[in-house]
Amino acid sequence: MSLAESVLQGNRLALARLLTQIESETPEGIAALSELFPYTGQAHLIGVTGAPGTGKSSLVNQLARCFRQPVACDGNEASEPCRVGVVAVDPSSPFSGGAILGDRVRMRDLAGDPGVFIRSMASRGSLGGLARATAGVVQALDAAGYQVVIIETVGAGQSEVDIARLAHTTLVIEAPGLGDDIQAIKAGILEIADVLVINKADHAGVEATERALRSMLQLGHPSRYEVQHHRSVESSALAAAPVQDSPMWVPPICLTVAPEGKGIGELARAIAEHRQFLHTSGEWQQREHSRLRAEIDLLLGQMLMRRWQGSVSQDRYQAVLDEVFRHSLSPWQAVSQLITC
Amino acid sequence: MSLAESVLQGNRLALARLLTQIESETPEGIAALSELFPYTGQAHLIGVTGAPGTGKSSLVNQLARCFRQPVACDGNEASEPCRVGVVAVDPSSPFSGGAILGDRVRMRDLAGDPGVFIRSMASRGSLGGLARATAGVVQALDAAGYQVVIIETVGAGQSEVDIARLAHTTLVIEAPGLGDDIQAIKAGILEIADVLVINKADHAGVEATERALRSMLQLGHPSRYEVQHHRSVESSALAAAPVQDSPMWVPPICLTVAPEGKGIGELARAIAEHRQFLHTSGEWQQREHSRLRAEIDLLLGQMLMRRWQGSVSQDRYQAVLDEVFRHSLSPWQAVSQLITC
Repeated sequence: MSLAESVLQGNRLALARLLTQIESETPEGIAALSELFPYTGQAHLIGVTGAPGTGKSSLVNQLARCFRQPVACDGNEASEPCRVGVVAVDPSSPFSGGAILGDRVRMRDLAGDPGVFIRSMASRGSLGGLARATAGVVQALDAAGYQVVIIETVGAGQSEVDIARLAHTTLVIEAPGLGDDIQAIKAGILEIADVLVINKADHAGVEATERALRSMLQLGHPSRYEVQHHRSVESSALAAAPVQDSPMWVPPICLTVAPEGKGIGELARAIAEHRQFLHTSGEWQQREHSRLRAEIDLLLGQMLMRRWQGSVSQDRYQAVLDEVFRHSLSPWQAVSQLITC
Repeated sequence: MSLAESVLQGNRLALARLLTQIESETPEGIAALSELFPYTGQAHLIGVTGAPGTGKSSLVNQLARCFRQPVACDGNEASEPCRVGVVAVDPSSPFSGGAILGDRVRMRDLAGDPGVFIRSMASRGSLGGLARATAGVVQALDAAGYQVVIIETVGAGQSEVDIARLAHTTLVIEAPGLGDDIQAIKAGILEIADVLVINKADHAGVEATERALRSMLQLGHPSRYEVQHHRSVESSALAAAPVQDSPMWVPPICLTVAPEGKGIGELARAIAEHRQFLHTSGEWQQREHSRLRAEIDLLLGQMLMRRWQGSVSQDRYQAVLDEVFRHSLSPWQAVSQLITC
């Protein structure tokens, strides 16, 4: 039986082995991914991002647990417990793999549940390499029948934008006290948010954070904010409020206290509503397409580079580099020379 | 007179125009950069990074002001005031350019000093595009005679690692209260730090943050930490403590209160010591080389992609994409087909 077939039959060990192959980009891993690709496209990909200190990991754990309940915590009686994959991407740890520490804490919490599969990924090489590997890992979990795949990244930079490209639904996590700083609330980060979460909502300053988020949202999407929303930790009713003519998604703001599970059900409901919105508006397919296109472009860049590397001698490359090191050739000039040889 | 010549003669307007050309990657900008390249390699490139809420911008302002004093604030009588360039890179704002807000605050503080040049950059396209443009902007400032170029990025992700590649000296900024979380202190981020700064050192919890940083440093570099260091806001004496046989840099921890200017002189001294260390150990040249090499590889990737795009028809590309969208072809298979046609 091939590795891909074992994965399709639900073999966890085979899945773990495949993910390692994907991370190392082995020919075996690539072949298995191609074999699995027809079975992908089913999972709801949820991106979770936000600055350090917002309690992301704890929130992701609670969310995963919520999706696993016999009667789903989003209050929908018809929902069935989902199999949940969690991919924790840590682009800030290219050297020593900082993901390990957080992972150990996480494992203690969800370990032993056969319906949950957790994978930590630390960047070993370039950002491009990490993005490619993450796309592959997510596809493998999708094909293996995990209906929900949560992709969590650390940081507040470009990686968030890449998540937005990978995920169907992107959660941006904030916390009180971090939001006072001009730097803390970035229009760019908010623009990728489908759902905003203020975690640690029992801390002081939660109203200020919510006000700040709301005014940034209004700044970014004035047309979306004709309706004022009002919620609290206890009843954060999440009005998507799509306009009748052109369906439009208003990113709701959810307040949560992750360690106590407060607001998690409401958050799950907001996520379910967003999935519904994606399907009815046709945006689900659009996001699938732009995700696959981005993946193809990444792979193209890699393959073109490899092919070029195979066509140029190491001596020639080094000779041109040396000229740049001596400042007698600019980087642009160097590349022009290298590419025409 | 060419644009490059005007820049070399200290024309600020010409410099501003050139930076815009570089950001847009116009042929004129690329030509000017090549003309300027022989004049680069003089500036001390200082990367500044850290999570939102640590007060990075305020710290960078104070540092720039310190470098501008008639007698340098590092206490070295022989130092002369430097011309300072500041490049604020904001990879989190690909959409609406969130850098503008912070920039306005910053300008108020340093405006009118002809020895300071400030440039904000928000990612307009890919991360690769931003990295390329930043490298070019830094080179232009270097050639224009700015002896210190401070490169500040927002975020706590891959962008920090890219800074480490671009800068000679990388400062990682922390603040009390953010450091309690497991996520906040990332071994990977610390590993790129040449100097660690705990800003907002008048806030509660500074001892805990310092302890946490120190133990993370010991975890990462046990051999470096045979000597215990001790400092306070008032006298943060910064012992580099290189071992005699193999010169080694121990990242010092500086405590600062940026708005009051506390600890800024000590920080400037730590930066000067690191520059000295780079020169005596030969690492300065090594970092120059790996930076130029990284830039060349980025440019190569871009040029190869452009050349390939010129060689394939849009119809052919779209046909293959459509097969992937229908899940009848995997992304890897698609790329293999595209690249051989």
